[in-house]
Amino acid sequence: MRQDPNCSEFGKRWKSDSQQGRTLKSSELTFGSSVEVQGKLIQSPHKRQNVELAAENICVVGPCDVQAFPLKYKTHHPLDYLRQFPHVRCKTNSLGALLRLRSEATAAIHSFFKDNGYLHVHTPIITSNDCEGAGEIFQVEPANEEREPGENPHFFDVPAFLTVSGQLHLEVIAGAFSKVYTFGPTFRADNSQSRRHLAEFYMVEAELAFAESLQDIMQAMEDLFKKVTDAVLSSCPRDAELFHKHVAPGQEAKVERMLKNQFITMSYTEAIEILKRAHQEFIYKPEWGRDLQSEHERYLVQHCGEIPVFVFNYPYDLKPFYMRDNEDGAQHTVAAVDLLVPGVGELCGGSLREDRPDFLQSRLQRLGLEDTYQWYIDLRRFGSTPHGGFGMGFERYLRCILGVENIKDVIPFPRFSHSCIL
Amino acid sequence: MRQDPNCSEFGKRWKSDSQQGRTLKSSELTFGSSVEVQGKLIQSPHKRQNVELAAENICVVGPCDVQAFPLKYKTHHPLDYLRQFPHVRCKTNSLGALLRLRSEATAAIHSFFKDNGYLHVHTPIITSNDCEGAGEIFQVEPANEEREPGENPHFFDVPAFLTVSGQLHLEVIAGAFSKVYTFGPTFRADNSQSRRHLAEFYMVEAELAFAESLQDIMQAMEDLFKKVTDAVLSSCPRDAELFHKHVAPGQEAKVERMLKNQFITMSYTEAIEILKRAHQEFIYKPEWGRDLQSEHERYLVQHCGEIPVFVFNYPYDLKPFYMRDNEDGAQHTVAAVDLLVPGVGELCGGSLREDRPDFLQSRLQRLGLEDTYQWYIDLRRFGSTPHGGFGMGFERYLRCILGVENIKDVIPFPRFSHSCIL
Repeated sequence: MRQDPNCSEFGKRWKSDSQQGRTLKSSELTFGSSVEVQGKLIQSPHKRQNVELAAENICVVGPCDVQAFPLKYKTHHPLDYLRQFPHVRCKTNSLGALLRLRSEATAAIHSFFKDNGYLHVHTPIITSNDCEGAGEIFQVEPANEEREPGENPHFFDVPAFLTVSGQLHLEVIAGAFSKVYTFGPTFRADNSQSRRHLAEFYMVEAELAFAESLQDIMQAMEDLFKKVTDAVLSSCPRDAELFHKHVAPGQEAKVERMLKNQFITMSYTEAIEILKRAHQEFIYKPEWGRDLQSEHERYLVQHCGEIPVFVFNYPYDLKPFYMRDNEDGAQHTVAAVDLLVPGVGELCGGSLREDRPDFLQSRLQRLGLEDTYQWYIDLRRFGSTPHGGFGMGFERYLRCILGVENIKDVIPFPRFSHSCIL
Repeated sequence: MRQDPNCSEFGKRWKSDSQQGRTLKSSELTFGSSVEVQGKLIQSPHKRQNVELAAENICVVGPCDVQAFPLKYKTHHPLDYLRQFPHVRCKTNSLGALLRLRSEATAAIHSFFKDNGYLHVHTPIITSNDCEGAGEIFQVEPANEEREPGENPHFFDVPAFLTVSGQLHLEVIAGAFSKVYTFGPTFRADNSQSRRHLAEFYMVEAELAFAESLQDIMQAMEDLFKKVTDAVLSSCPRDAELFHKHVAPGQEAKVERMLKNQFITMSYTEAIEILKRAHQEFIYKPEWGRDLQSEHERYLVQHCGEIPVFVFNYPYDLKPFYMRDNEDGAQHTVAAVDLLVPGVGELCGGSLREDRPDFLQSRLQRLGLEDTYQWYIDLRRFGSTPHGGFGMGFERYLRCILGVENIKDVIPFPRFSHSCIL
């Protein structure tokens, strides 16, 4: 608490060229202004609060230009209106609650892994790998730098990209530490203007040495989801309530159903059979060998009573090179698993990794990637173990537990195609 | 523990095309191989360990090609040799210890801020701002994407860069939450091949609303340093010992001296006077108005008896636009503070921020940056408060407490000019 009861020092700062501001000018005490209040903490006559501050002295520390201020007194501002003003929207109840929930969820994720003996690793953001072989990646070079003729055109001597996943690097460290995780930003140069995609988003990724079956991976995913959600809801009940009552009515019951039921498991093959039997017209016809579409994911979750469902053993040709061949036929399925949840669809993806050097090498050879990933093959030549892991999209997780429609409303500064404000 | 005492399942995986591997082939039990051991945990006759495992069954889960393996049995591998092999160096004692210490320090930093009421914020990695107005930044665009003629040349419609600091974004959130912090990657396209610089490194940054003097900022920095170091040393004593005895002998006493003494404070003006009185030839002559060089920082820390020293109130013209004018003359000094520590030099930098809209606006006007930072000026028009904050380089911090010479040895996957391995 400050010494000067009239708050003159701040007053002076703000009014250095005008009056001294020793008395409160009520015209400055507007919506949006910052104030410093001195008074007595007394018992409150109101429900829902125990105490209140009986003000004796109020000082406007920072006035607010109410005409220009994008937030208005006693006005409901829709989330899409607020998205235009990332520099002030954190002052609203909804974004304030979201930021507290996000901070608590971050802490709960770190606690979960620490309590379960995982090592935290900062996997690199800039990488010379392109983990998924996907096209939609960002490339990085110095701004405004002229290269000399004959000089290597790249700052790192090789093309460098923003990471799409820390998995391959995490596998390196899992070779020395058994259980490891990372929690950091990942990037996709995705042109779609959807409410489900961001160009910059956060991923929680874990890797478990000696994981022998997808069961180990599914158990870790389910534990993570349930423990973190319990922790977040119990540490921020009022903030969660704001979302569950006002932003997404009915969400509380949905979350409770996810927490108290064991997650369901089905193979990809079973999933396709369920979809084929469905009395529903899909835009994309379900067919073994094709990717599950959002409409299929929604149907499967609904079919399972809105309980999260693990779909495992996907067709070999649908999945990236590092997933373990199940050997249930000639390159038939791989030991991959996706977790589908109500309202969001795919929340997590995981797999056992191809730990057999000969299998991995011949698959990379067929893809023409043998040289690029020689180091990754080498991991299998230098004392490897069976292992597997998974990733969870952090913003998808927040959407799932809070019932928020648009992914841009669960991250403080959303980045997507055509938009990078601030 | 696995069921099959002969570990045949793993054996089979590894030898699917050869023998079944039901008996241990001792030729496979080489340095670098991964093993699964079953046996009895018994009391150990050795000092420094209480128990040992009397093996009954040893199974080589992953053999090691010892010829190709870059690590050799009973050989000391210097840190600069290991740097060539980021995919295997985590298997050595030194890098293993480092990664545990790094993970513990990460957890201790999060705990420090949580315990002190700070909100964690994910400030953006991709930004349209260039915080320091510095030249050495990375620009980001999609790889291999052809833009249509007439189409905006930028994915985000504006040039976008990798962040050099989360500070300005943190100031946004501090306007709603009082105490906030971020801990994430930051980037510099620095061409220098020094043992002190990386292109990708981690920063801990905090912002405190209602901070009225540099004393508040310095106290937070000193508390952070001491609490985190205490926590790391007490949770990983053996790992710290490895560095303090073998990598940097004598470092333990140095760290103890930093922890038990109150940090020293001196103004920039005093610092220059001390340097001018020094009986030492400097390459760069100390002069009021010029930046402190490494040689000056080293001398000042030595002069203070190898105790960390805060240097505050720097010349106005040396510092970025957001620092608060002290008004001790016409644009004479700003309320900036750097923390200098033994062995490393500058570890933290902080300042009070210019919270007066008129001061900020006219400074940005003179720099021609008024339009770019209109949103930042607006923060001061919409209920601002006096505030300040600081940043600490995480890798510099690790170098400082462990005595590691080269910054490339305290991060799992170092990125610097001409190098981006994996």
